[in-house]
Order: sequence, then C-alpha cells, then structure tokens
Amino acid sequence: MRATALIAPLLLLAAAAQADEGMWTFNRFPADQVQAAYGFKPDAAWLDRVRLASVRLAQGCSGSFVSGEGLVMTNHHCVHACVEQLSTPEQDRVAQGFLAKARPDEVKCPDLEVNQLVKITDVTDRIAAAVAGKSDADANAARKAEMSRIEKACATSDAVRCDVVSLYEGGVYDLYEYRRYQDVRLVFAPELAIAFFGGDPDNFNFPRYALDSAFVRVYEGDKPAATPNFFAWSEAGTKAGDLTFVTGHPGRTSRLKTVAELASFRNKALLRRLLWLSELRGALAEYGHRGAEQARHSRTWLFYVENGLKAYRGEAQALLEPALLAAKEAAEKALRARVAADPRTKDAAGAWDAIAAAVRKGEDLQIRYDLLERGRGFQSDLFGHARTLVRLAAEQARPNEERLREYTDGNLPAIEQELLSAAPLYDEFEAFKLAWSLTKLREQLGPDDALVKQVLGNETPDALAARLVKESTLKDPAARKALRDGGAAALAASKDPFIALVKAIDAEARAVRKAYEDEVEAPIRKNHELIARARFALEGTNRYPDATFTLRLSYGAVQGWPEGGRMVEPFTTIAGAFGRHTGADPFALPASWLKAKDALDGKTPFNLVTTNDIIGGNSGSPVIDKDARIVGLIFDGNIHSLGGDHGFDARLNRAVAVDARAILHALDRIYGAKALATELRGR
Amino acid sequence: MRATALIAPLLLLAAAAQADEGMWTFNRFPADQVQAAYGFKPDAAWLDRVRLASVRLAQGCSGSFVSGEGLVMTNHHCVHACVEQLSTPEQDRVAQGFLAKARPDEVKCPDLEVNQLVKITDVTDRIAAAVAGKSDADANAARKAEMSRIEKACATSDAVRCDVVSLYEGGVYDLYEYRRYQDVRLVFAPELAIAFFGGDPDNFNFPRYALDSAFVRVYEGDKPAATPNFFAWSEAGTKAGDLTFVTGHPGRTSRLKTVAELASFRNKALLRRLLWLSELRGALAEYGHRGAEQARHSRTWLFYVENGLKAYRGEAQALLEPALLAAKEAAEKALRARVAADPRTKDAAGAWDAIAAAVRKGEDLQIRYDLLERGRGFQSDLFGHARTLVRLAAEQARPNEERLREYTDGNLPAIEQELLSAAPLYDEFEAFKLAWSLTKLREQLGPDDALVKQVLGNETPDALAARLVKESTLKDPAARKALRDGGAAALAASKDPFIALVKAIDAEARAVRKAYEDEVEAPIRKNHELIARARFALEGTNRYPDATFTLRLSYGAVQGWPEGGRMVEPFTTIAGAFGRHTGADPFALPASWLKAKDALDGKTPFNLVTTNDIIGGNSGSPVIDKDARIVGLIFDGNIHSLGGDHGFDARLNRAVAVDARAILHALDRIYGAKALATELRGR
Repeated sequence: MRATALIAPLLLLAAAAQADEGMWTFNRFPADQVQAAYGFKPDAAWLDRVRLASVRLAQGCSGSFVSGEGLVMTNHHCVHACVEQLSTPEQDRVAQGFLAKARPDEVKCPDLEVNQLVKITDVTDRIAAAVAGKSDADANAARKAEMSRIEKACATSDAVRCDVVSLYEGGVYDLYEYRRYQDVRLVFAPELAIAFFGGDPDNFNFPRYALDSAFVRVYEGDKPAATPNFFAWSEAGTKAGDLTFVTGHPGRTSRLKTVAELASFRNKALLRRLLWLSELRGALAEYGHRGAEQARHSRTWLFYVENGLKAYRGEAQALLEPALLAAKEAAEKALRARVAADPRTKDAAGAWDAIAAAVRKGEDLQIRYDLLERGRGFQSDLFGHARTLVRLAAEQARPNEERLREYTDGNLPAIEQELLSAAPLYDEFEAFKLAWSLTKLREQLGPDDALVKQVLGNETPDALAARLVKESTLKDPAARKALRDGGAAALAASKDPFIALVKAIDAEARAVRKAYEDEVEAPIRKNHELIARARFALEGTNRYPDATFTLRLSYGAVQGWPEGGRMVEPFTTIAGAFGRHTGADPFALPASWLKAKDALDGKTPFNLVTTNDIIGGNSGSPVIDKDARIVGLIFDGNIHSLGGDHGFDARLNRAVAVDARAILHALDRIYGAKALATELRGR
Repeated sequence: MRATALIAPLLLLAAAAQADEGMWTFNRFPADQVQAAYGFKPDAAWLDRVRLASVRLAQGCSGSFVSGEGLVMTNHHCVHACVEQLSTPEQDRVAQGFLAKARPDEVKCPDLEVNQLVKITDVTDRIAAAVAGKSDADANAARKAEMSRIEKACATSDAVRCDVVSLYEGGVYDLYEYRRYQDVRLVFAPELAIAFFGGDPDNFNFPRYALDSAFVRVYEGDKPAATPNFFAWSEAGTKAGDLTFVTGHPGRTSRLKTVAELASFRNKALLRRLLWLSELRGALAEYGHRGAEQARHSRTWLFYVENGLKAYRGEAQALLEPALLAAKEAAEKALRARVAADPRTKDAAGAWDAIAAAVRKGEDLQIRYDLLERGRGFQSDLFGHARTLVRLAAEQARPNEERLREYTDGNLPAIEQELLSAAPLYDEFEAFKLAWSLTKLREQLGPDDALVKQVLGNETPDALAARLVKESTLKDPAARKALRDGGAAALAASKDPFIALVKAIDAEARAVRKAYEDEVEAPIRKNHELIARARFALEGTNRYPDATFTLRLSYGAVQGWPEGGRMVEPFTTIAGAFGRHTGADPFALPASWLKAKDALDGKTPFNLVTTNDIIGGNSGSPVIDKDARIVGLIFDGNIHSLGGDHGFDARLNRAVAVDARAILHALDRIYGAKALATELRGR
C-alpha cells in the first residue's frame, strides 16, 4: 500500500505538483491552480489577511489569531509543556484542565513565544554576492555572516524578529520579518484525557475523537495585544467536498534531497534515532512508575518521544520501500542527464557526486556532533542552561556576524526567555535524564574515548548525574541571571559543576561543529544551490520548496480515503467518543464530559480529515474555508501521511483536525466558558 | 568498512567457501581443505572424539566435557539464569560468584539440559517419500508428521533425544541422536563483575578482559555421569598463527536465504525487533531502579536483551549496506539463469518467485503470529506455564505425529523440566513484563482489535497484569504439577486467570499459526528444497549448510585483524584488566581479584581472537588445538562478526575467547579452586 502511496507523486516531481500537493509560500502561491481545481482564486488581499492572522509558536507549532484581542488558537499538545509547568502536586492542570474565567486569571506561560509574519523580502542576490568566488567552507561562513547582517539591520527592536530563510535548498533566500510576542498567557486547556483521548494507540490514526485544542493570549505592555487581523469562527462548519486551506508552519520535508542523502539518512541517522527514542520511551514510561509525581514530571517528554517515534517510524517504512528510492533514483538520473546536457546548467553536473562525498564525511562526524554539540549526550535542562551561559558570554564578545548563528542579536530575546524561565525543574527527573544520556554517550563513543573518560572519571553515569544535579545552583533562575549578568568574570569564578562540565567539553564540541559545517554542511549547501538554480532554469519556478518551519499555505478538501476496500468517512461525532470510552486510560473520558453527556448533541462533528498537505509543525494550524473562517484545527495526520517527508499522495494522505463545531460545543456545554465562546463568536 | 567486509565472501558464495569460512557438519567435514591450509588432516577417529566431547546446552549454548566425571565447561552467560535462580536477597550468587568446594556442594540448576550428539543418520529419502506428490500445505504437514515418527522411533527412553534436522534449507534431512542430561549442577561461576567485565559497552568489542566461564556437572542416578570422551586441558595454551578448531552449536545464519527473504526481514521483522528490544531495554534498565531486589530479578533478562539488541543492530547495519544486497542480487540472478537453463534443475526456476510471494504473505501474518502464537504479547512465565498446561493436555490426546511439533513425545522431558522447574518467580517482575507486553499487544494490533478488546476489557495493561499475577496460583510448581496431572478435567475446573487467558486466545493463536504454516512456511520450505537440490546438482556438495543450532566444526587460526590502519593484537593479558579497572561498574574488578593482585602473573594471556567462523549459539564452545586439547573458551565475536548471519570475511571477522591459561590461573590464584583445577589438569 505504502509503495503505491508514495511513488505516484515522486514520478511527477519533475513536473508540477499534483492536485492538493504542496506547502506553498505566500509570495509564490499558485492561485490559478486553486482556481482551476476548486473554482476559487485567492487574491493578494485574501493572502495578506490570512498571512497576518496566522502565527507561529517559536518552539515548534502553528496557531492563529481568533479575536481582535490577541486570542490565539492552537493545539493542547503545543502548550502541554506550559500547562505542565503551571502545575503543582496539588493542582495538576494537565489532568484537570485550565480555564481562565476572566482576563486576570490568564497565566503566563514561561517559555512560549508567538511570531506573526509581517513581511517577506527576497535577499537572494545579497547572499549570492557575499559568497561569490569563495571556497565552500568560506562561502558557508560568509553566507551566515551576511544572513546575520541582514537580520540585525532588520530587527529594530526586541519586538521584531528577522530570519533569513533558505528555500528550495538554497535556490532562494528570503528575509522573514515577524512581530514577536513573548508575553503569552494560558486561557484554556481541556483535560489531557480528552485533548489526547486514545493516547499513543490512536495517535496518527483515524477515526479519532480528540479535543486537542487550547487557547492562549498574547499581551503587550501587560494588556491583551490588539490583533486586528484574525480569523472569524464559522458556526456552520464544513462538509465533505468543501475547499479547505491550512495555513501554518510545516517543520521539515525532504522531498528535494538527493538519493545519497536519503539513503545515508535512512541507514545511519534515522535508525540510530529510532533506537534512541525507543529506548528512551521504555525508560520514561517506566520512570513514571516511580510515583505519581515522577509520572507527572515526565509525561510531557514521554508524549514528545512517542509522537516523534511514531513519525520517524513511518518515515523509515517509507524509505525502506525499495520502490520509493528506486523512483527517486530514476528521477534523479533523468534530471542529471538534462543538467549535464544543457549549457545553462552544466556547472551543476557534479553537484550530486559532491553531495554524496559530503554525506559520507557526515556519517563519520554525525555521532560526535549529535552527542557533544547538539547535547544529546547531556540531556538535562541544567546542562542546557550552563551551555547557554558559557557560550553567551563568549559569543557576545564577538561582532554579531561572527557569532554562532543562534547567539546573534536577533536571537537574544529567545535565549533570554529560556534562560530566565520560571519553569520548574525537578532534581530527580533531571538526574534521570542526564544519567540515561550519559549511558548513551559512553555507549556510542565507547568507554575508551578520551572525552568519555574525562566526563565520567571513575563514576557511573547514575552517580555522576545525581551528584551534578545535587550540587548545581542553576535550578534557580536567579542564579542563572546572576551568571548571565556577571558575564565571563562570574563564569570564571563559578564552582557550578554544570558550568565546569560545559567548559570541559566546549572546545571539542565547537571543533566537531566546525568540522561538520566546513566539511559537510558547506559543500552540501553549495551544491544544492547549484541544483536548485539548474531546476529553476530547466523547470521554471512553479514549485514549492521543502518545509523549513516557515509559513506555508496548503489547499485541499474535506475527504475520506479508501482503506481495506472501503472508504473511511471524513467526520467523527461526539457520540462516537462516548462509544469509545472504556473508563481506562487512554480511553477514559474526563469527568466533565461524562457529567455533561445529556447536555451534548451527539451528532456534533468532532474530528475530520482533509486532503491538505501538512507535516509536523503544522500542529495548531487553523483549517479555514474560502471566506477565511475557522472550520477546524489541525492536530495530526493519518498513518499514510507519515511518509510525507518524502512525497504526497492525495489519494491516501490526510490531515486530521478538530472540527470547529466541537470546540464551540464543548466550550458552551461542558466547560461553561462563556467569555471565551463569546469572544470566538465575535459577539 | 563493513561493505568490504561482507561483499568479498558473498561474491564467492556460488563457489567453495573461502579459507576458514564455514560451520561444517561432522559428517561432511572438509578435512582435505584443512590439510591444504594448515597441514593437518583430522581423521574419522579425531572427528568422533571431538564430537563426543562436545555438548549443547538445550536452552541455547554450547559446551564441552572437560573431565571423565561429567564436568562441563561453558560460559558464565550461558548459566547466568541458573546462578540467578539459585540466588536470594541474602546470597546473591551472581554478584558473589559460586564455587562448590566438593561434589556435595554442587547445586542443581532448575532449567538446564545438556545434550551430547551420539549419532547422525541421513533420512532425506524418507522425508522425500512422505511429501511426494502433495500440495505445499499438505507436504508441510506430512513432513512434520514423518519427522515426529522418525524421532519417536529413535527415542527409546527419556535419556535419548532425537531431532530430525533440516540442513541446506531442506536439501538434506539428518536424524541427530543425543544423550540427554537433565540433572545438571553448578560447580563454579565467577562474579558477574569479572565474567562480564566491561558490560554492554565492551560487549562485541576487543581488546577484552572477561572471565566469561563457568563449570557445571551432569549427573546420572544422583552420581556424576561417566564421560570418557572429554577434552584434555592445554597448560601451554596457544599462540598467534596456531591452528584452532571450534566445536559447537551456532544458532542461526541466513547465508542461503533469497534476496526477497532478506529484504523483507530487514524492512519489517528486523526493524520491529530492534525497536521492541530497544524499548524493552530502556524499560528494564529503569525497572532496576525500583530497588536492589528488582535490579537483581531483572538483570539476566536485561543482559539477554542488550546482547540481542547489539547483535541485531550489527545485522541491520550489514543488511542496510546497499552493496551487500546488490551482491546477493547479482549472485542470485546468475544462479537463477543457470538453474533455468539446465534441464536437471529447471523445475526450480520458479522457486524464487514463489518464495517472494510467500514472504509477502508472511509480512501480513507476522505481527499477529509473534504476539499471539509466539506469546510476545504476553511476556510472563506464568502465561508460558499456562499455555504449556492447556496445550499439553490437548496435544497429548492426539497421536504423536499429529501433534504440534513441540509437544511430541521426544520433547516431553524438556517440557516437563521447564513446567515443574523450581526456579523462583517474582510477582512484581512478572507483572512488569506482562504489562509492558500487553501495551505492545495493544499498540501493534490496535485498540480496536477484537482480541485486544477481549483481553484488556476495560482495564489498563498495568491493572490487568497486576491482577492476573496476584490471582494466579501458577507461581507454585506444585499447583502446576496438579494441573498437569489432572489433565483436561483439572483445566476445565481451574479458576486460574492465566489458564482462562490462554484458553480465551488459543483458538485464534492456533489459527494464525496454521495460516502461517500453510501459506508461508510450506511454500518457502518446498521451494527452498528445490533450490537446494538444484545447487547440489550444479555446484556439488562441498558446501556447509546454514546454522541450525546443531553441532558444527569450524577451523581457523589465532590472528588479530587490521583496524584503523594498525593491527589489533590477538591476545590481552590479566595485567590489562587491572589497567582497565576504574572501580565503577561495569569496569570494576571484584574484590577477589583486587585482593589477589600480587599473587597473579600479569603476563598471563586473558582473552584472544581467532579466525573461526562462529555465531550466537557458539557461546560456551571450546577452542581446541589439533591435539583436541582445550586452549580457549568462545564467548563472543568482534564487531565485524555481527554481520556474520549473511557472510564471513576472514580478514575482519573474529571469534573472541577466554584463554585457557587465564581460567586455570584464576582458579589457582584467585578462587582457591583446588579440586576443580586438579580435575581439569587430569591429575
């Protein structure tokens, strides 16, 4: 089944995208294509309005303004960490849900940042000029420096976030200018039992019955922000066959990667990641058996791990289908032949081999890079804070454009927010995470590795982790602030064991990063740019770029799909949720639902599926109709969509959403959320 | 590196095996080949003597007689479960080690069975006659019935075990007749800290420093059995370049499988197994954090899981190398062309396609088959006992040759031993294992599956598992015996919840097994027999069959291998172990070693590597010289050998062994095991 699902579109990669396929940028949206397929042509005003009503949750989700007073709709699983952070042993808001009856009851989420895309500017020529005539490694550094320069000039205040984004694997560089909101407060989150009804067993499956929705509000100067561009609510909702748009921030696709990149990813990095997450899943789930508090502390992470595992597993299954790589190989071969034969593009003829060589080099460096530089060998928030403190001091001493990209001025507000966050840390959980990852560090680098010996000394991972967490002062945001304010001198004087650990491995972590950037990233980027320009020359620009966690618009329709010889219906109902209720987790409806049962209209549509082309990062995206009214809220994809990193099949791939009618019905009849419902209705 | 390692021999698969490659049967041993390579030709008497001194541990290991009084040498990790079962909270024999100072101190291992291969008879013609003219499914049933008939006629008492084994994927059927020993007593096991020094990090690596050795003794009539065929001990040991033989029971290789079988295994079953074991590893390791007792109860299983995981992971890496499957494809294509062109073999021309079709069918059935029939969804020994009781009663009511193969008369002694075993069961651990596997049952079949709903009802896996374990009486061997003795009537009256569970799913488990056997196993077996006969016709019989956990002999030499531009030395020393000692697990030498340090000769060889072709199941195999004297004890392979399921490269693949001199030195100087050392020395 999956082979058929994925091959069809791949064979068409060289041509235009097929109906409903595509995560399109707002400045290159194929309005005529939508007109041809659905008889509706979004104009510039419509696109601007939709863009400005769409938001990104900087930590990895999408959302939308749904009132003029800063109200943002997103998924429960996008704010799960916040709800967890606002919980205590006495008041478990994840389990019990949260509703601010009035504005003063809205509580600040320690770590959330909301971005609204206000402007897109093409800066391809500036980047091209900066890298011209340079070696791969020098060009890579020059590219980053130029990006930092452009971003700094653009970001005139902390409320402006500017990112130069690479699209079409470097074929286009656009400057994305965002309005940044860091005061984000929780308004409503239902009980986890209904937000994630069906749990991991139902995740990525359909029929489905989940109220995976939440509302937060962005504030400015301690007041709700004015957000004149927002989506109105459709009380009538949508029906099978209706045109639907999804606006949001798909995180990553790999549809333009070369076969060498895909094969290497599948055989090495992906397999390693799958085994890592599986083992971590087992450890985390069992950690929760230590006690109720430990279960509470670990459940958010467990959710992310299980969700990621299921997604990666789907991706692995797609990449293991011999037919998929074979189709990609055939397409690549054909493109290479055209590129080599055409005088306009023949400078790109060697690009594929150059990428393959860099990929092999990457395989040698990847494990060390992940463990040391990406910190996977030191999975504790305390290590993260210590790393930030040490590097912040070092990087701020350098000119903006020479810094590591994540420490440029434009990123300082986000760094600051995370570093000084009031989110609670739990000693036992930090020690558990760190000990587990130290075990992996030793396993993957080997016990004879000099760095492993230096880190572990004569201690076991368990003993070392427990000691570091016990002795560290970084659990206290004030201690972190003091070190941040004190800069290099304070860090030099610090006796904190995490600061010492970070310092001890920093030279090696930076070295492996530099090697990776110079020897892997630089040639891959340079050669992908060559391929991208060759494609534009040969195939034109009527294409969508791979997902990059930037704003995209997808069009499609409400539609089921064929499975096992029958059609899966596109809607479920609230009555269906009661039919699925067993009383045992994860199939236990919360008390509020059981109590309200008689007051509910069982026929109310609950979840639905559409043909929109989405992927992870689209979580929290609104589903809107042609009048740009909210008819649903994306929270998942069906099982076929898990191969979506590598292709799209309109016949089988489906986006899964909460029906807007279910959200309003629940707010009205179950949660008594009068003020919120009124605000959504706009009256 | 791995690609080179594995391709070379594969390209030669159609020709004779390369030097040192091969797990040869004793009745088709290539003595001339050894003569040509090493100047020594084993004769029939030598082979008989070696065969009779070799034993199998029926649960999955190898061993050897090392005295005339039933003394058996094997690995610590082969008797780890026994040592665990003989431990208590007060006396942790795994941690402290065990030494029987005199015969009366030797303690019975509840579950061990030792087999000595006394005779091999070719029964290929009888099997061929039984299946002639039948459909695939009928032939499959007839084949099994004939095997059961042959075995029953052969097994004249419980002390005789007879197995018809299929070799060359069905090209040859041989009857293996064993002397069976079920009274096996522990004589010596060192502390786990030195038996498994370096733990999982060092596992499958070298240089290595582990005393992974143990001694047990087989008894007859409550007296040490007389075992006139045994290996003498070589006090002089071996040196680089010396010819070495390894005799033992390699468990499984897949060197003759078709490309369709390998690709399916890699993409589906192997990936699923890797993720399963990874998650279980995480859960088990964390379960050990519940407390010291829980750690003790779970560590044996954790060891098996980690060991299996590392082995499967090496296998996955081998199968993911595109070059490996490409080489196998090329070899298969060439063979198919020859088979189709030759009138003697052309009836086998369609065999590969028929196998591919059956493999696809197998993919559909495999998950259910593993979970229900193999019991992976119900991982508790209590479920295992209940399954045995229910099926034993049902199967014993049938004629021997119509029974499920594992319930034929020849297997009853083994079933009995396990069912009535005094090995302790721990409620909390049983509940943990069962709950975890029920979670996987729900995950893999889906929460809507009728059987899942029937099993779980409205309970969570945790709650159901805890309840079943609490209510069951099967923890008591006496209760199991009563049900065994009471037969069908007793089972009908039983209120035990595990008996009820087994009964509830038995019809479906049997149905999926029948479907699997008829639709997958039967056509695969039939068509592999066709291929095997075609190969014999085209290539002759100078080949070795894939491993099947039957006795094999491998020849090779003591030799290091090139790694990273230098040669790895073939020996380590006892001094090296002290150099590696950090004091922290798994690099902490036991107190007995630290105390004896000054009495030890640091130059004593500790571990060594040889070019013998071995795989899992060879654990516990003796390494012998041309005079059939013990010079070492196999316990592992190097990292390159992990692809050994699919090929062998004499340049890189190495067997890892404990040096015989280290064993004797430790018995003399550390353990004061005077009687044992004297017995080994034969004086």
